[in-house]
Amino acid sequence: MVLDKIQKENDIKKLSEEELEILPGEIRKFLLEKVSVTGGHLASNLGVVELTMAMHLVFDLPKDKLIWDVGHQSYTHKLLTGRREGFEDLRKFGGMSGFPKRKESPCDAFDTGHSSTSISAGLGYVHARDIKGEDYHVVSVIGDGAMTGGMAYEALNNAASLKTNFIMILNDNHMSISENVGGMSAYLARLRTADIYTGLKKGVTSALHTVPLVGDHMISQIRKTKSSIKQLVVPGMFFEDMGITYLGPIPGHNLSLLCRALREAARVDGPVLVHVMTQKGKGYGPAEEQPDKFHGVGPFQVQTGEIKEEKKKDTYTDVFGKVLCDCAAKNDKIAAITAAMADGTGLKRFARRYPDRFFDVGIAEGHAVTFAAGLAAGGLKPVFAVYSSFLQRGYDQIIHDVALQNLPVVFAVDRAGLVGSDGETHQGIFDLSYLGSIPNMTVLSPKHKWELADMLRFALCHDGPVAIRYPRGAALDQYQEYRAPVEYGKSEMIVREKGIALVSIGHMFEEAEEVRRRLKEKGYDCTLVNGRFVKPIDQEMIRELSKTHDWIVTLEENVETGGYGQQVQTFVCQENLPVRVLIIALPDAYIEHGNVSILRKEAGIDADSVVKKIERTIC
Amino acid sequence: MVLDKIQKENDIKKLSEEELEILPGEIRKFLLEKVSVTGGHLASNLGVVELTMAMHLVFDLPKDKLIWDVGHQSYTHKLLTGRREGFEDLRKFGGMSGFPKRKESPCDAFDTGHSSTSISAGLGYVHARDIKGEDYHVVSVIGDGAMTGGMAYEALNNAASLKTNFIMILNDNHMSISENVGGMSAYLARLRTADIYTGLKKGVTSALHTVPLVGDHMISQIRKTKSSIKQLVVPGMFFEDMGITYLGPIPGHNLSLLCRALREAARVDGPVLVHVMTQKGKGYGPAEEQPDKFHGVGPFQVQTGEIKEEKKKDTYTDVFGKVLCDCAAKNDKIAAITAAMADGTGLKRFARRYPDRFFDVGIAEGHAVTFAAGLAAGGLKPVFAVYSSFLQRGYDQIIHDVALQNLPVVFAVDRAGLVGSDGETHQGIFDLSYLGSIPNMTVLSPKHKWELADMLRFALCHDGPVAIRYPRGAALDQYQEYRAPVEYGKSEMIVREKGIALVSIGHMFEEAEEVRRRLKEKGYDCTLVNGRFVKPIDQEMIRELSKTHDWIVTLEENVETGGYGQQVQTFVCQENLPVRVLIIALPDAYIEHGNVSILRKEAGIDADSVVKKIERTIC
Repeated sequence: MVLDKIQKENDIKKLSEEELEILPGEIRKFLLEKVSVTGGHLASNLGVVELTMAMHLVFDLPKDKLIWDVGHQSYTHKLLTGRREGFEDLRKFGGMSGFPKRKESPCDAFDTGHSSTSISAGLGYVHARDIKGEDYHVVSVIGDGAMTGGMAYEALNNAASLKTNFIMILNDNHMSISENVGGMSAYLARLRTADIYTGLKKGVTSALHTVPLVGDHMISQIRKTKSSIKQLVVPGMFFEDMGITYLGPIPGHNLSLLCRALREAARVDGPVLVHVMTQKGKGYGPAEEQPDKFHGVGPFQVQTGEIKEEKKKDTYTDVFGKVLCDCAAKNDKIAAITAAMADGTGLKRFARRYPDRFFDVGIAEGHAVTFAAGLAAGGLKPVFAVYSSFLQRGYDQIIHDVALQNLPVVFAVDRAGLVGSDGETHQGIFDLSYLGSIPNMTVLSPKHKWELADMLRFALCHDGPVAIRYPRGAALDQYQEYRAPVEYGKSEMIVREKGIALVSIGHMFEEAEEVRRRLKEKGYDCTLVNGRFVKPIDQEMIRELSKTHDWIVTLEENVETGGYGQQVQTFVCQENLPVRVLIIALPDAYIEHGNVSILRKEAGIDADSVVKKIERTIC
Repeated sequence: MVLDKIQKENDIKKLSEEELEILPGEIRKFLLEKVSVTGGHLASNLGVVELTMAMHLVFDLPKDKLIWDVGHQSYTHKLLTGRREGFEDLRKFGGMSGFPKRKESPCDAFDTGHSSTSISAGLGYVHARDIKGEDYHVVSVIGDGAMTGGMAYEALNNAASLKTNFIMILNDNHMSISENVGGMSAYLARLRTADIYTGLKKGVTSALHTVPLVGDHMISQIRKTKSSIKQLVVPGMFFEDMGITYLGPIPGHNLSLLCRALREAARVDGPVLVHVMTQKGKGYGPAEEQPDKFHGVGPFQVQTGEIKEEKKKDTYTDVFGKVLCDCAAKNDKIAAITAAMADGTGLKRFARRYPDRFFDVGIAEGHAVTFAAGLAAGGLKPVFAVYSSFLQRGYDQIIHDVALQNLPVVFAVDRAGLVGSDGETHQGIFDLSYLGSIPNMTVLSPKHKWELADMLRFALCHDGPVAIRYPRGAALDQYQEYRAPVEYGKSEMIVREKGIALVSIGHMFEEAEEVRRRLKEKGYDCTLVNGRFVKPIDQEMIRELSKTHDWIVTLEENVETGGYGQQVQTFVCQENLPVRVLIIALPDAYIEHGNVSILRKEAGIDADSVVKKIERTIC
């Protein structure tokens, strides 16, 4: 196999023309074999095989810096930099990350995970290079989806005035995870539809069709001018207007054209944007047809494309999506917003049923929050469904545009707590802290699926901002008997005893229940409370517990600083209540990828660790 | 006076042509008279007198929604909506805000303060209107400075697909607070320089010069086509490419042209951008010449333009700027970044001395943070100087791009704590919480100017992210004798006694010192500690204090949740130390504009309130 000849970076340069022709097929076969077993990101990786090869052929690693936006498309890059073995335990605890990691390889120039960061980081490298008088290329690869994020534009705006080389590759597959939205996407689509796939030179002239408002007569005139990099510029006036040289569009599965374009780009004295047209899922039928299904995927059957999923229980995401639709049927003021994650956040059904009240704003969380504030100021009940770690992008907007005006925006904070195999960048472990410190904000978290439904209904009636945070994965569907009505600021008593009181937040209820079972076995009396409200905390409950308990043990899947436990502890101390508080929370550290149950154990918040900690501390 | 005829919104519509000609002069005179006494934003307000009048003439308030980006240019709007009396106590505690406030007037459609939010909020209103089947206009006014913020682009991108009317006015004065930067600015400048000030029609053809790469021959051809809104579009291809109708450029001090353009805009079925050219400081010589000096200004002499400032002591900002320059002289790896605030953050000197290492990235805090991470990854020592409340815009990027990779980026967090007359949107009261919960982050705060210098030097040597937070205004220049070397994680003992230990963070040292003085007068023994490190807290100090004190009183100008006091309390409880903790911090609420000493009293963190609280709690 040709792939066997690649043991480390730059080995690809030793391959013959023929071998280079064979390699893309082998890489795709390899990725399919591996990802079909481990799960992982597939469609995006199949789309950039030739592009990655071209980058590795033209540039010199690790001297040159390649920065992958988001980074879930870096599998071929990992393969070409000697990490073939890593695919055995891709995204497993202790195994290779699904994203670029500086600690994994010197060829990973910058860690990524969230969208739209690569141009900013690349521009930093460029200036560092120039200031230090060093000589290397910096190449940022950004998808057209990531171009809907404002940060990318801030960075482009800033890069425009650069006088030295900086290569930005726009990997245009006309999708983020789902279809792209908005003006930029429409613009790129216009560029794409020109018949430009036959080569650089031909591409130039035909792309001139895309210049708006210039009639046919003028196009023929422009066509007469001779081809050069200067002219290649015309289709990308959006970028040129900012001062960035535009090269393209380049057919993204033609290795020799890609190499030629990258070599051209490397010669430009200034910022250059190489517009590359790729196809998500390229080379694998099922992924080409359903790239969103094969974006991030579990194990699947390669032959058929059938995804091996045991009939799963409803996830919290499913429950949220269904209940929101029910509510929207009765209340025509309810609107739903996603930042390019309609599927992931469970809003697809809403989008189908209520297209006029559904908004996909692109990968633009900051805008999404203020847009929601505008909808609320205009008299609607907007619900922004978003992953916990991505909502960090809208932190200021929550403070400044929503909570300050006490506007009734509902934040459906999905993927809260530990998310598993996506790892450090995606763990939703700060939300209770960053949301909890915002005035006027109400923060809650459900213990099981019925409670999520009840909390959503509560939130939709509450006159002010509310965040409901819930985790990835199957929703707990036991304990339906525990379903006391959701009342503002009130926790839920599950079992009332004496001695030790366990107060859990959201999905930590399961661990708390298990902790209680084990403590009972050991002969301890043990109260179990579902905390429900992280902000405001249920002061009355704490006061009550303090009368008959020696210890309150709080359990949350969030960092300790600023979390629920600290609020309980502060209240207990302020009131000088006769009870001590033991906080079970995540440590002050980033938490890697891996199975959530392993991660909980590592972090010391699984039932086992908690019981030990309680025995050590209390008993 | 014509101005006397305006008692409420829409009164302006009753004025005659002649009166409308007189009014701008009267408004400018009024603003000058008032702002020269109270201080406030001047240059931006003088620039939009005619634009605001045109908006009030064409639109119907409060039915139509006017949304001001940032909002410091809303003085004429306040004047035309019956708030003339408010200028007596502009930006004073209990008085009129310098920004739009829904609670002040139904004509203020949306609260603003931070940059680049108006299109998002406006788009929200538009969709709310359409969904509810209502009929009104939504007009967002955004400056060209605010257009450097990514959020504005996210919103434009999203607005582009709109099918109903939404008017965005680009108030282009070629400045933010200081000169604008970047590709967008260059593009707008090109539009401006065309000779377009003589009217709409003439503007169209001459602006065609701005179409890049189209030769003279073609321009003459395009010129032959007849003028219509469709053609007005050509100069704004940047916007047109996204799907937004472009109208302009419009001379911004010509009332009748402005009204004509706005009426045209109101007829467009879809998103329309009206590009208006205004001059900051218009009509007042000193402000026209030095618009940045008269951006936000204290009391001044109208005749001469002389700003009445007593020879002030160095501010923390000054100290930061000077020391950073000193350090940069010795270390050529130090780079400095500002998000359009070179002057406000004290970086002007650095910019002059080290232009190659200085970066103004535009109003783009998110990008700034990741750009800094890129610089650090490339081997530099970047310092991002930024206001506390604006750094909220870069929260995710700190977590995701800086701290995760433990990159040595220094955050010089200015305007931390209460900022005074800018009010709610600008108070820097969350930073200890949002920075303190980020792994790998070090957070400190200096008690006086020498300590700021020491801390900055410490930060520049520290191998990881560091934030130093300090307040607006004069730096404390007493107690130079207390200047123990800054050591990682170590607090500074000022006076060691027994009984009560006061531990203050940063500039709360002054209040703590005063509290100690008063407690001593009342006969209490009192230790005084300068906490220095908010993260990590000095556990050893707390352990020591617990041996000889009954109470530790922490003092910080930050919200309680997630702040310093809670970290001390958690440690005390975890270790079961024999001491109680009293947390003095800001309440869970937004804090309005006003003099900082009044605000501290209101919030209960001034020496007086603290002494009372201590006596009530402890004694």
